[in-house]
Amino acid sequence: MKNLLGGPGTVTGLLLRVGQCFCAAASIGAMISSLGFSNYTAFCYLIASMGLQLIWSLGLAGLDIYALKIRRNLLNPVLVSLFVVGDWVTATLSLAAACSSAGVTILYIRDTDFCKSQPNLHCHRYQISIALGFMTWFLISISSLVMLWLLASI
Amino acid sequence: MKNLLGGPGTVTGLLLRVGQCFCAAASIGAMISSLGFSNYTAFCYLIASMGLQLIWSLGLAGLDIYALKIRRNLLNPVLVSLFVVGDWVTATLSLAAACSSAGVTILYIRDTDFCKSQPNLHCHRYQISIALGFMTWFLISISSLVMLWLLASI
Repeated sequence: MKNLLGGPGTVTGLLLRVGQCFCAAASIGAMISSLGFSNYTAFCYLIASMGLQLIWSLGLAGLDIYALKIRRNLLNPVLVSLFVVGDWVTATLSLAAACSSAGVTILYIRDTDFCKSQPNLHCHRYQISIALGFMTWFLISISSLVMLWLLASI
Repeated sequence: MKNLLGGPGTVTGLLLRVGQCFCAAASIGAMISSLGFSNYTAFCYLIASMGLQLIWSLGLAGLDIYALKIRRNLLNPVLVSLFVVGDWVTATLSLAAACSSAGVTILYIRDTDFCKSQPNLHCHRYQISIALGFMTWFLISISSLVMLWLLASI
């Protein structure tokens, strides 16, 4: 159980963290580059949530690199509990942010045709940003499940 | 670990399932009774998701009652794996539905003042339905965590 794929201090764990950082940063970039995003609470919340995710995943990626470099085992119950709580909180916030933004975007694109009537709105970029937000959530949810599994097995 | 609070075939587990059924049914009721909900994809998705949650929780509540009545132990790995998958899928769908509906409602109430300019929209009922959706998610997420913990410990 100690060599579980995606666990802390493993290469797969590091790859997951790097993927989370990349997707979260790309999501923020796509949203910030679109016009008028700041008028919508859901989009601002997506940026805030992805920012938090980026900081958290960057910190854990650094810790993974450190653990891989000095070959230190990070599997102690206190540390894994901390990872579990952090991962679950950020995963839930990421999903909530991606879904609330998706709700608004679907309303604009499908329900009201607002995107067609207002071509100056960058609906396409909103969609890219939200898709990247969902990818971030998918990657962090894998980390969360692995961490919870590890905590229950330690 | 076998007597974990909220586990399958326990009184607390049954109470959690009853709470989930109640909140999901109330959320559907509040949304259906509000005018014009069917024009919005997010609200229809909330009803569909809460409907699925209601069926799932009702089924498991029945199973809990049966297990309590004949004092049967439900803690076998195959059964708990099934509960884990079902709980996680419905919990994720419930959170996604509640958040996407919340995104639309915040847009209408706060970002665009659409609720004030269109008093025939039942924004207050949308809010009640969404709050009940979040309560459903909170209760199912407790069940999900307990089930995953049980699966890792069996």
